[in-house]
Amino acid sequence: MLRKGRFGGEMDPEASEYTSSMRDDVRLFDAIIRINAAHVKMLRECEIIEGSDADKLLDALSKLEKEGIEALDLSPELEDIHMAVEEYVSGEVGEEIGGKLHTAKSRNDQVSAAIRIALREEVLEIQEKLIELIKGLSEIAGKNTDTIMPGHTHLQVAEPTTFGHWLNSYAWPFSRTLEELNDDYVQVNSSPLGACALAGTSFPIDREMTSELLGFDGTVDNTIDAVGSRDFALQTMSSLAVLMTNLSRLAEEISLWSSTESDMIEVPDEFASTSSIMPQKKNPVVTEITRGKASRLIGDLMGGLNLMTTLPQSYNLDLQELTPLLWDAVDQSKSSLSIMAKLVKEIRPKPEKMLEHAEKGFSTATELADALVREADVPFRDAHAIVGKLVAGALKEGKELDDLKQSDLKKASKEIIGEEIKLSKKKLKKALDVGECIKSRALPGGPAPKSVKNELKKLGEKTKESEKIVEKRKKSLAKARDNLFKSWIGD
Amino acid sequence: MLRKGRFGGEMDPEASEYTSSMRDDVRLFDAIIRINAAHVKMLRECEIIEGSDADKLLDALSKLEKEGIEALDLSPELEDIHMAVEEYVSGEVGEEIGGKLHTAKSRNDQVSAAIRIALREEVLEIQEKLIELIKGLSEIAGKNTDTIMPGHTHLQVAEPTTFGHWLNSYAWPFSRTLEELNDDYVQVNSSPLGACALAGTSFPIDREMTSELLGFDGTVDNTIDAVGSRDFALQTMSSLAVLMTNLSRLAEEISLWSSTESDMIEVPDEFASTSSIMPQKKNPVVTEITRGKASRLIGDLMGGLNLMTTLPQSYNLDLQELTPLLWDAVDQSKSSLSIMAKLVKEIRPKPEKMLEHAEKGFSTATELADALVREADVPFRDAHAIVGKLVAGALKEGKELDDLKQSDLKKASKEIIGEEIKLSKKKLKKALDVGECIKSRALPGGPAPKSVKNELKKLGEKTKESEKIVEKRKKSLAKARDNLFKSWIGD
Amino acid sequence: MLRKGRFGGEMDPEASEYTSSMRDDVRLFDAIIRINAAHVKMLRECEIIEGSDADKLLDALSKLEKEGIEALDLSPELEDIHMAVEEYVSGEVGEEIGGKLHTAKSRNDQVSAAIRIALREEVLEIQEKLIELIKGLSEIAGKNTDTIMPGHTHLQVAEPTTFGHWLNSYAWPFSRTLEELNDDYVQVNSSPLGACALAGTSFPIDREMTSELLGFDGTVDNTIDAVGSRDFALQTMSSLAVLMTNLSRLAEEISLWSSTESDMIEVPDEFASTSSIMPQKKNPVVTEITRGKASRLIGDLMGGLNLMTTLPQSYNLDLQELTPLLWDAVDQSKSSLSIMAKLVKEIRPKPEKMLEHAEKGFSTATELADALVREADVPFRDAHAIVGKLVAGALKEGKELDDLKQSDLKKASKEIIGEEIKLSKKKLKKALDVGECIKSRALPGGPAPKSVKNELKKLGEKTKESEKIVEKRKKSLAKARDNLFKSWIGD
Amino acid sequence: MLRKGRFGGEMDPEASEYTSSMRDDVRLFDAIIRINAAHVKMLRECEIIEGSDADKLLDALSKLEKEGIEALDLSPELEDIHMAVEEYVSGEVGEEIGGKLHTAKSRNDQVSAAIRIALREEVLEIQEKLIELIKGLSEIAGKNTDTIMPGHTHLQVAEPTTFGHWLNSYAWPFSRTLEELNDDYVQVNSSPLGACALAGTSFPIDREMTSELLGFDGTVDNTIDAVGSRDFALQTMSSLAVLMTNLSRLAEEISLWSSTESDMIEVPDEFASTSSIMPQKKNPVVTEITRGKASRLIGDLMGGLNLMTTLPQSYNLDLQELTPLLWDAVDQSKSSLSIMAKLVKEIRPKPEKMLEHAEKGFSTATELADALVREADVPFRDAHAIVGKLVAGALKEGKELDDLKQSDLKKASKEIIGEEIKLSKKKLKKALDVGECIKSRALPGGPAPKSVKNELKKLGEKTKESEKIVEKRKKSLAKARDNLFKSWIGD
Repeated sequence: MLRKGRFGGEMDPEASEYTSSMRDDVRLFDAIIRINAAHVKMLRECEIIEGSDADKLLDALSKLEKEGIEALDLSPELEDIHMAVEEYVSGEVGEEIGGKLHTAKSRNDQVSAAIRIALREEVLEIQEKLIELIKGLSEIAGKNTDTIMPGHTHLQVAEPTTFGHWLNSYAWPFSRTLEELNDDYVQVNSSPLGACALAGTSFPIDREMTSELLGFDGTVDNTIDAVGSRDFALQTMSSLAVLMTNLSRLAEEISLWSSTESDMIEVPDEFASTSSIMPQKKNPVVTEITRGKASRLIGDLMGGLNLMTTLPQSYNLDLQELTPLLWDAVDQSKSSLSIMAKLVKEIRPKPEKMLEHAEKGFSTATELADALVREADVPFRDAHAIVGKLVAGALKEGKELDDLKQSDLKKASKEIIGEEIKLSKKKLKKALDVGECIKSRALPGGPAPKSVKNELKKLGEKTKESEKIVEKRKKSLAKARDNLFKSWIGD
Repeated sequence: MLRKGRFGGEMDPEASEYTSSMRDDVRLFDAIIRINAAHVKMLRECEIIEGSDADKLLDALSKLEKEGIEALDLSPELEDIHMAVEEYVSGEVGEEIGGKLHTAKSRNDQVSAAIRIALREEVLEIQEKLIELIKGLSEIAGKNTDTIMPGHTHLQVAEPTTFGHWLNSYAWPFSRTLEELNDDYVQVNSSPLGACALAGTSFPIDREMTSELLGFDGTVDNTIDAVGSRDFALQTMSSLAVLMTNLSRLAEEISLWSSTESDMIEVPDEFASTSSIMPQKKNPVVTEITRGKASRLIGDLMGGLNLMTTLPQSYNLDLQELTPLLWDAVDQSKSSLSIMAKLVKEIRPKPEKMLEHAEKGFSTATELADALVREADVPFRDAHAIVGKLVAGALKEGKELDDLKQSDLKKASKEIIGEEIKLSKKKLKKALDVGECIKSRALPGGPAPKSVKNELKKLGEKTKESEKIVEKRKKSLAKARDNLFKSWIGD
Repeated sequence: MLRKGRFGGEMDPEASEYTSSMRDDVRLFDAIIRINAAHVKMLRECEIIEGSDADKLLDALSKLEKEGIEALDLSPELEDIHMAVEEYVSGEVGEEIGGKLHTAKSRNDQVSAAIRIALREEVLEIQEKLIELIKGLSEIAGKNTDTIMPGHTHLQVAEPTTFGHWLNSYAWPFSRTLEELNDDYVQVNSSPLGACALAGTSFPIDREMTSELLGFDGTVDNTIDAVGSRDFALQTMSSLAVLMTNLSRLAEEISLWSSTESDMIEVPDEFASTSSIMPQKKNPVVTEITRGKASRLIGDLMGGLNLMTTLPQSYNLDLQELTPLLWDAVDQSKSSLSIMAKLVKEIRPKPEKMLEHAEKGFSTATELADALVREADVPFRDAHAIVGKLVAGALKEGKELDDLKQSDLKKASKEIIGEEIKLSKKKLKKALDVGECIKSRALPGGPAPKSVKNELKKLGEKTKESEKIVEKRKKSLAKARDNLFKSWIGD
Repeated sequence: MLRKGRFGGEMDPEASEYTSSMRDDVRLFDAIIRINAAHVKMLRECEIIEGSDADKLLDALSKLEKEGIEALDLSPELEDIHMAVEEYVSGEVGEEIGGKLHTAKSRNDQVSAAIRIALREEVLEIQEKLIELIKGLSEIAGKNTDTIMPGHTHLQVAEPTTFGHWLNSYAWPFSRTLEELNDDYVQVNSSPLGACALAGTSFPIDREMTSELLGFDGTVDNTIDAVGSRDFALQTMSSLAVLMTNLSRLAEEISLWSSTESDMIEVPDEFASTSSIMPQKKNPVVTEITRGKASRLIGDLMGGLNLMTTLPQSYNLDLQELTPLLWDAVDQSKSSLSIMAKLVKEIRPKPEKMLEHAEKGFSTATELADALVREADVPFRDAHAIVGKLVAGALKEGKELDDLKQSDLKKASKEIIGEEIKLSKKKLKKALDVGECIKSRALPGGPAPKSVKNELKKLGEKTKESEKIVEKRKKSLAKARDNLFKSWIGD
C-alpha cells in the first residue's frame, strides 16, 4: 500500500519477513484501534476531516474492534499492524475515505503511543501481583512471628531470628519496587501523539485532546523526543530487573531451606516435580524456574540498553527490536510473581528443624559477648575475643556452647585479657538461650515477635497506599476508555 | 585483631589481599568517621557506654578526622577500613576503651550506612551536573530557535526541523532522569544502622537517633533487609545507565553531524585531538569516549545485577564486589556529564550547511502531501502515493523537488488516482519551502521557533523544581553534618 | 505419568505451565526420537532389554517419526517432550513394554544430548550462511578493487582507500568467527548419554555405542559434567555474539554510507521501506533490524551467563531457561546472516560520490607529509607539523589541499622548522593525488588494487578450508543418521 | 607535540584528562618499547631511515627500557604512552632524529600491537594458573576416589556419588576452557603493525619483519581490520567469562557444602574470616569474592560487547575504553584462579558427614527401581512408580528406605501394578546400600573409584597436551624477545 508511489516493486520477501513487526504487534491491537478512534474524533473536532467521513471511519474501527484481530490481514508485506488496520478500514469504507485515516499522524508516534497504552496496563497488573505477593508473605509472616529459625550470614548460621522476620526481609524490597513502579507509571503514561514522523504537522491538531481521550496523564512535548525516546521502557525494565533479582533471591533461599540438608521448609507437592529416573525425588522446580526467569529478564534489559546506547534520536527501526524485549520482561515478571505469590502462601515451615539449626553454629555467641560487656564490663572487642576463644575450644572438644561451664569462660578470659571473668550461671544460661536471645531483640525491625508485628503493620500501611494509587489509576483508565467507547461505539 | 579469639593464625596473605576491601573503602573514610561518632553519641545517650569513655572515643575520632586517612594502617590484613578505624582509635585511647567502639554495631550495617552516605552526595552532585547540562543545551537552543536543520529518521533526511528543537529533544530525557534521581535519593538516604550483623542487638539502642544525627531521612526497618539489600544501589545504577544511553546518543549525533560528510556542527579545537600520523585530522574524541563510558557503565550494571541475582538475603561478602561497580558507575557518569556539559555549550552550528542538508532528500514532501489533502481534498494515503511518485520521477531525472512544475504533479496524480490535480504555483512553492514548513509547524513541542521557545520555558520550570529539591537536600545534609560536628568536635 | 508413585496429586496447573519446557522442546523432537531409537538399540545389544521388546519400541518410534510432532500430546502437565514421547510409545506398545524405554536413561542426559544434536546442525547451517556472506562480500569486493572511497577514522575522512579494501575489512572478522565455530562444534558434538540423572547407572550400558549411533565425535566423560555443563552453549553463544557485533558494525556503516549526507552506497529498493507519512522516504531498514538483533543476541548471552554464574553442578531446572536463549541466539544469527548475505551482494557503490568524499578532508595529507620525509629529508614529526599548519591555513582561507602552491608549503615550513622546504610541482601534485596515493599503498593488506586482489585470494583459500570442514561434518552426520535409520526404520 | 601544526592551542584540560589513556597505558610500556625497537630495526633494514639515525633511536629506547616507565612524562596532555615515549626519545636524541621514530606507523596500529603483546602473555599465564587449578582438583580427587558423598539435583539429594567424581566434574569444564584459550591465543598473536592509521603507507616497509621480530605468529592482513577489530579481545573475554562462571559454580558449591547445615567440607582457617560482631563465625569468604568477581567479569564482557556493537570499522577512540575492561577481566581471572587453586588443595572433606547425607533422601531409590527391572522384570516406568509409592509411604511413617521390608515392597507393587513383587532380602539390602550402589556404577565417567581413576588419567593426559603448547609458546616468545634484545641492546 505504502510503496506504490515511491518504489517500483515489492520488498524482498525475506527482507519483509525480517523487518516486519507484525508478530509482536498483535499485542498492540487493542491500543491501536483506540488510538485511531481518538485520532479521528480529534480530526473531526479540529475540522481537519469532515464529520461524515469521520463517522464512517469510526464505524469501521468499531466493527474491527468487535471482530477482533482475526479480521486483519497480518502478512508481513503489510509491514505492521498500523498498516493492517488502515488496510482493513479502507476495505470497509473505500480507499477515498480510508486514505484519510493517516492524516496528521505517523507510525512513529502511533507505535510509541500504543506501547505506552499497553505497558501502563501491564505495570498496573504487575503492581497488583506484587501486592498479592507482599500480602502472601505478610500472611505467613503473621502466623510465624515467633517461629525461631537460624539467621545466616555467608551461609553460616549467625544468630537466631524468626521466620516472620526473615519473610519481612523480602517483603520490604518488593514494597520498594512497588513504589518505584508508581513513579515509572508517570513516565509511561504520557502521550506522544501529534509528533507524527518527528516534526509534528502543519494540520491544526489538538494534542491535548487525543491525550485526554486515551487516558494519558499528559503529553511528551518535544516531537523528536516523543518518537525517539524509550527511557520509559528502559526505566520500567530496570525496575522489573531489580524486582526479579529480589524474587530470585527469595527463590534461592526457598530452594536452600528446602534442600535435603536444611529441610526447614516444605514446598507442597503441587509445586514440585519428581525425576524421570529417581522415583524418590521431590524437586521444588518452581523456584528454579524463577531464578532462570530473572536471568532472562536481565538479558532483556541488557539487550534494550545495548540497543539504545548509540541510537540517534528520532525514529530508527532498531526501536522495533526493543519492544519484544519489553514484553518478554513484562511476561516473565507477571508469570513469576503470580506463581511465587501462590507458592509463598503454601510453604510450610518445619519449626523443630528450624530450631535445631538455630541452635547450631554457636548462634548466641554474640549475645554472650554482649552479656560480658553488660554484666562484666568487658570492652566489646575483648568480649568478642573471649567468646571466640571459647568457641574454638568447644569445637576442638566437640561441644556446643550450652555445654560450657563457668570454668571454661574463666579460662578463656584469662588467656585473652589475663583476668578471670565471672558470669552467674543464670546469666550464662540466659545469654546462651536462643529463645531469650530472640525476645531481647525487640528493637524496631528486629526479630522479636513484637518487632515483627510492628513491621507488618507498617508494611500493610505502605502497601495500602500503593494499592490506592493503583486502583485510582485503573479507574481513571477505565473511565477514559468508557468515555471513548461511549462517544464512539455507543453503549 | 578480630581473629585472635576464633582462629589459630593469620589469613593466607593472598586470600587476605583477595578478600580485603581496603582499596575501595578509602572512599568511605569520611562517612565511617561520622558513623562512628554518631554511634558513640547514641551509645552514651542510651547509657550503653559511660560518658567519659564516650568522650575519649569521640576525641580520638575527631583527631582522626583532622589527620585524614593517611593516619590509618590500610594493609589488607586489617580486612577493611572499619577495622582500620577501630585499630587507630584503640591506639589512641587504649584497647580497653577502644574495644567499646564496636558495641552494638557490625560491619554489616556500618558498610551499608557508609555507602549510602557517600552515594547520596554523589547523587546530588550528579544532579547538579545534569542541571548544568540541561541549562547548557537550553542556552544554545535559545540562540538557535530558528536555525533550520534537517530532521532525520533512519539516518535519512526526513523533514526540516530547527537546531533548537533538536537540542530540546535531548534536554527532555535528561530532565526525566533528573526527576528519577529525586526518587532514587529517597531509597538511598535511609539508615540501616542498628541492624548490626543481621538481627539487631539486645542493647537498648536508639535507631532513630543515629539516623537523625547522620542526616538520614528515615530508617530501613527490617534488620536483615538493612544489611542484605542493595536495591538502592541497583536502582541508582539503572538510572545512571539510562542517563548514559541518552548522553551516548547525544554524543553519537554530535559525532555524526560533525563528520566530514555532514559538517553541520563544529566541535571547538580544545575538545578535539589530531592524529599521530595524519596531520590534517581533527577528531572530536570527547564524544567517542562518552559512548565508550556508557558501555562501561552498562557493564557495571550488568555486573551488579548478576551479582545480586541469587544471593541469599542478609550479608554475604559478594556484596563487597558490588561497591566498586557502583562507584565506577558514579565516576563515569560524573566525568561524562561534566565534560559534555562543557562541550555542548561550545558546539557551533553551521547554519548554511544545515540549511543545505535540510533542503536535500525532498524533506518537504510530507508538507506537499498535506497541501494536496488540504487544498485539493485528496485523501492522505493518495496524496502520499502521488508525492512518492513525484519523488521517484525526480530522482530518475536528477531533479530536486523545487524543480518540479505543476505539470509533473498533474502527471503523477493522473497515474495514481486517475485524475489530474492542480495546485496553484504559489501554493506549490509554499509547500516546498523549508522555511514555510518550519513556520507552519507551530504545534506544542514542534520545530517552529515559537514552539521551541515555549518548550524552553517549560523545561526551565521543570529544571528549577528539581534544582530546588537538590538544594534543599544539600542544605539539610550540611546542617546535619554541622550539628554532628558541633556537638562532637566543636566549632 | 511420573507422579503417580511419589505424589498424591497433580501439579498446580499454573506451576505446571510455568515449569514446563514443552513449547521450546518442539525444536528437539527430531533429536529425541533418534536418541530414543539409538538408546533402545544399545539396550538390546547390551542385553538389557529383550530383542522383541526392542523391536516393538523401535517400531513405535518409527511410527512417531513418520507422523511427526502432531501425534504427540503436548499439554504442559506432561512436563516436557521426553515424557510426551514415552507416553506416545506406551500408547502404541502398551505400558508394559513402553515402560522399558526409560531404562538406564534420564531426562537430564537426554535433554543435553538433544540440545547438542539440534545445535550442531544449527552451527553448521550458520557456518554455511557465514560462508555465503563472505563470498558475497568478496564478489562485490572483486568488482571494486579500484573503486576509490574515503577511509574514515573517528568518522572524519582520514585517507583514501578502496571499496574492495573496506569490504575485505569485514570479511576477515567473519572469517575468524567461521574458524571459531569450527572449534565450538567440537565441544558441542560430544555425547552426554549414559550419564542418566547425574551418576550413571549400574545397567551394563555402552556409552560409546549410543554416541556413535547418533553421530557424536566422542563422549562427555564425567557424568555430573555431562548433565550439568552448558559451556558448549555459552561458548557458541559467545561466538555468535562476536559475529553479530561485526555484522552490526557492517550494518551501521551501510546505514551511514547510504545516509542522505554520505550518499555513497545505494541499497536497492527491495531492501528498503518508505514512511507511512513521508512519501519521499527510502529507509534501509534491514540494517537497522540487524543492529537491533545484535543487541538482542547480546542480551541472550548475558541472560545465559547470568543463569550459569552460581548454579551448582549436576542438574537444576534453571538450565531449562537457558535453552530458549540459545535458540533465540541461533535464530537471530541465522536470519540476520541470511538477509545480510543477500543484501551485500546488491548494494551499489556510487563511485563519483565516493571519490568526491575521498578528496575531502585533506585525505592525502599523510602522503604529503611522507613525501616531505622522503624528498626533503624532514623528520616525520616535523613533516606532520608542517602539513598540519598547511591544513589549518587552508581551512582558514576556505581552500582544499590541491589549491595549495609551493609558496604555501614554504611559508608553513618556515614557521614550523624555520626553514623553507621545496617540493617540485610534480611531486607536490603527485603527493596530493588521491589515485596516486592508493596506487602507492600496495603493501600486503593495503588499499591498492593489487593488495586487495591478493587478500581476496587468501580469504578465498581460508574460506575453502572451513567449507571443507563443514561439508565433511555434514556428510558425517548424514551418514550416521542414514545408518541409524536404515538399521531402525529400514529404507 | 602533535597539536602544534593543526591547532591553535592546547586541549581543554578536563577534556584531556577525560580522553587520555595514560593511566591504563602503563601496562603497555614494555610492549611499546619493543614495538618501537622492532619498528626502527625494520625501517633501517628497509632503508627508510639511515643506519646512524636508527642506532641513536635504538640507544635511546634501550636507555628508556632500563630506566623504566618512571623516566616518562605521563601527564594527560601527552594523550597516551605512545607520545610519551616519542617525547622521551626526542629528548634523548634531539627532535630531528626523534621525529623519525613515527615514520610509517601510527598509534592506531601500535596500540593494537601492544595490547596483543601484553595479552598473549596474560593468556599464557592464565593457562598456567588453570593448569595449576586442574592439578589441584585432581590431586585431591586422587585421594578421594572412594569418599562417598551425596550427589544432588535441584539441591535435593539424588544419588550417591564420590568426592573424586564431583571434583572431576569441575576439572573437565576448566580443561575445556584451557583448550579454548589455546585457540584464542592464535587470534591474539597476530601482528597489526604496518597498518598505520588505517590504510598502510607508501613507505616500502616489511610487515613480516616486524611481526617476526616481535614474536607474532603472523599478520592481520587487511589494514583497516588491523586497526579496527577487537574480536581477539572479545573472544578472550568470552572464554574468561565462561571460565569464571565455572569457577563461581565451584565456589558456590564449596560455600554450600561448608555451610552449617551441610558441613561436609572444611575450608581451612587461613581462607576464612570471622565477624566483627559474632565471635564464633568462620566465614569462607574467598569463595564469595570469587562469585562476585565472576559477576564483575561478566559485566566487563557486557561493556565490551556493547561498545563494539555499532562501531564503524577502522579506528574510533571508543576502542580505548575497551582496553581497561579487558585488563580487568584478565586481572580478576588471574587472582581468582590463583587463590582458588590454592584453596581447593586445602579443602578437607568430612567423610562421615558426607556419608550421612548420602544416605539421606532415599538416594538409592533408583538403584532399587533398577533392581526391580533386572530381578523381577518390571518395566522401568512401573518400577519407578512402585519405588515412588514406597518412598511416599516411608515418608509418611517417618522411615528411611533401609527400614523397609519385603512386605512394604509387595504392598506398593500391588497398588501400582496389581501384582506383588518379590525381591530377596539380600538383593533388597544390596540395592539399598550406598556403597554397593557406588561400586556398581563403574561405567566410563561414573562415580565408582575405578571410573574416577580412569578419568583422572585422561584428564592428566589432556592437561599435559595443553601444558606442552603453553610451554612451547612461552619459549617461542622468550626466544623472540631475546633475539630482539640481543640485536638491539646487546647482552
